[in-house]
Amino acid sequence: MASQQFDPPSGTRDFLAGDVRTREHVFAVIREVYERYGFEPLQTPAFERLEVLSGKYGDEGDKLIFKILRRGEHEASGEADLALRYDMTVPLARVVAAYGSQLPTPYKRYVMGPVWRADRPGKGRFREFAQFDVDIVGSASPLADAEVVSAAADALDALGIGAFTILVNSRQALAGMLEAYDVPAAVGNGVLITLDKLDKLDPDEVIRELVEGRSLNEATARSLVGDLTASDAIDRMRAALKDSDAGARGLAEIDRFLELATPGVSAARIAFTPRLVRGLDYYTGVIFEVVADGVPGSIAAGGRYDHLIAALGGPDVPACGISLGVERLILMTAGSLAQAAALDVAVTVLDESAAATLTGIAGELRHAGLRAEVYLGASRKLARQLKWASDRHARYALIYGSQEQATGLAIVRNMESGEQRQVPVAEVAADLRQR
Amino acid sequence: MASQQFDPPSGTRDFLAGDVRTREHVFAVIREVYERYGFEPLQTPAFERLEVLSGKYGDEGDKLIFKILRRGEHEASGEADLALRYDMTVPLARVVAAYGSQLPTPYKRYVMGPVWRADRPGKGRFREFAQFDVDIVGSASPLADAEVVSAAADALDALGIGAFTILVNSRQALAGMLEAYDVPAAVGNGVLITLDKLDKLDPDEVIRELVEGRSLNEATARSLVGDLTASDAIDRMRAALKDSDAGARGLAEIDRFLELATPGVSAARIAFTPRLVRGLDYYTGVIFEVVADGVPGSIAAGGRYDHLIAALGGPDVPACGISLGVERLILMTAGSLAQAAALDVAVTVLDESAAATLTGIAGELRHAGLRAEVYLGASRKLARQLKWASDRHARYALIYGSQEQATGLAIVRNMESGEQRQVPVAEVAADLRQR
Repeated sequence: MASQQFDPPSGTRDFLAGDVRTREHVFAVIREVYERYGFEPLQTPAFERLEVLSGKYGDEGDKLIFKILRRGEHEASGEADLALRYDMTVPLARVVAAYGSQLPTPYKRYVMGPVWRADRPGKGRFREFAQFDVDIVGSASPLADAEVVSAAADALDALGIGAFTILVNSRQALAGMLEAYDVPAAVGNGVLITLDKLDKLDPDEVIRELVEGRSLNEATARSLVGDLTASDAIDRMRAALKDSDAGARGLAEIDRFLELATPGVSAARIAFTPRLVRGLDYYTGVIFEVVADGVPGSIAAGGRYDHLIAALGGPDVPACGISLGVERLILMTAGSLAQAAALDVAVTVLDESAAATLTGIAGELRHAGLRAEVYLGASRKLARQLKWASDRHARYALIYGSQEQATGLAIVRNMESGEQRQVPVAEVAADLRQR
Repeated sequence: MASQQFDPPSGTRDFLAGDVRTREHVFAVIREVYERYGFEPLQTPAFERLEVLSGKYGDEGDKLIFKILRRGEHEASGEADLALRYDMTVPLARVVAAYGSQLPTPYKRYVMGPVWRADRPGKGRFREFAQFDVDIVGSASPLADAEVVSAAADALDALGIGAFTILVNSRQALAGMLEAYDVPAAVGNGVLITLDKLDKLDPDEVIRELVEGRSLNEATARSLVGDLTASDAIDRMRAALKDSDAGARGLAEIDRFLELATPGVSAARIAFTPRLVRGLDYYTGVIFEVVADGVPGSIAAGGRYDHLIAALGGPDVPACGISLGVERLILMTAGSLAQAAALDVAVTVLDESAAATLTGIAGELRHAGLRAEVYLGASRKLARQLKWASDRHARYALIYGSQEQATGLAIVRNMESGEQRQVPVAEVAADLRQR
């Protein structure tokens, strides 16, 4: 039998103890920060009715949805009626529609869990991966935008992610930029998508793509890219945007956001970034992306999306949110996290007749909050069992063989120093609790 | 639009804040107990390759597997290649086969998460529900059987489930009972399945089913049921079993188990229960089931299943485990659990110009570990905002309108007593931290 027959399905992972502990640690830290902001947890099923998900992610997204075959007599039809959760936003829209007035206003929720996408698996790209989102539904206030960014920044801080920058822009500022540079409306979206590549591509390549791929005239392309990549890009953009209505509204939106976010987040960590576009086109107000030194791509992203909940089948309410790139955060945290909690006491079993006494002692130790394991193997050799205690990183080993039973004195061995002490068996639990 | 279009799929549930908190509390309590026993966490993907699950749960089980349609060009085939996890044991067998020597010996793991079964939804029966299992793979020692039962009992204690009883029997004792009462081998399994109904059905009904449904002769049926329901049933069974080889081995197995489990679990809570069968036929040694006063069915169940890992595709290793009926435990715990953590400080926003100052104060409070929320609604009326503070169960409200800005003195309102105090705005965070 080929060993790969025991691998998890392509694009998914098994998490053994160390991985689970790292992941749970990251989730717990973020959760605690979000709770302090008054966000509430939500959990929705792993799958939704197929019609709830279909048509919500564009043609490309639709192809990546895992669909579940109908069951029983309908299985032979080859049709699907359910589909695995593709993101956390469509389920949020459904929940807002379903529970309406039962939810607080605004509804501030965090959600953590796996989503599934039938993407081609690759380095750092999985078919089952965790998302950790925080959203505020039902508030149009710029305070809400500032709050989700501030909460995410606090979470990154709490995780010990030191050097990160929050890039900020606004859809209205982008519309203003297209106006200010006389970009024809018909090619506007394409031009923005290309400009968003300025963080990865050479300016000349971006100009070529604008001219050849987006049919923008070369003078406009050079002017736009030149201004966006200049050392005083922000001043140039501010000047250009002032002359357009949308641009002026965008600038005001960004400035208000910066004013409200900076008490919580150091101003040095937030940067108005005129080229920032964000791939998804459902954003309506400020947009943000968090990048970290030496980490490709973003570690968090979000923005205001005022009509998306309605487009997804919910009521037409204002909303904003931010999604942490939690799989990347887990990788960044893994190295810095202390490994598995070591065992406090390894209880050896050298003689069947003492086994009940020994499980009793182990029970007392656990009730006192200690981590205690009893040897479950078949060997009755001390050396073998001490090797096991050492493999389990035990601080102490308890030894109670026939010789010790005869005297009633158990041996407590310090696994680090090798020092051994005799302790009356009835006092072993109390003795170990005190260390 | 019918409102049910926003319901979660049939047999699944949305968990709003209170539900999530109850569930997470139950999971955390159990996890902490299992960690103290040295069990390690494991997480496997939500789906497995279909061939890993097919044929593992019998014909009835196979029909309840949620199958995932192939994707891309293969979708039209109507075929499935993946399937949602149906239990935690088949993934465990795959993991033991896949990681072998990377795992500790014995491998003591706990696992918590949803499983999916396309059962007909009903009261307390869901298509997505949580399981919390603990298993020991690679130890044939009766200490292992005693340990999983002791761990589960500690977990139930930690959850405050007061009155529960652990029913114990052994597959060998059951085989011995069939021998002792001269039940023909051909009808043995059917007879056991019917006898297992003695906890629900009238003895006469069970006798009728044994005779009519299982073709057992009436004298044997009356003798068996009479002995099993007698007030001295245990003594009668012990006497009967002694005369059969399998029965004697079963009794020895049960007595050793009781001896090793009772230091951890009070003997009054464990009962040798000769009629206990357990539905699944993969158990090979002791079997156990935990029942609670006033709760129908069992709240935990398990046993020793020495060849199951091999039958499921893993290596042939001894194993035992126990599965908690965690959905039932959540229901039993829900009432006794304190509700949502109340808000410490509700920060009102009466004047846009003070908003940045107020988000700054909220940030300071959160960094001190307090739960603070800023009002995100559109109203600038104090009464409306105090109503919000009250709805959020806030202990204090912070008021800082234009009048307060003029004097630099914010108002801290005790939401329970209504008492209000003036505090210099720069000292508000420090003042509230002290309460």
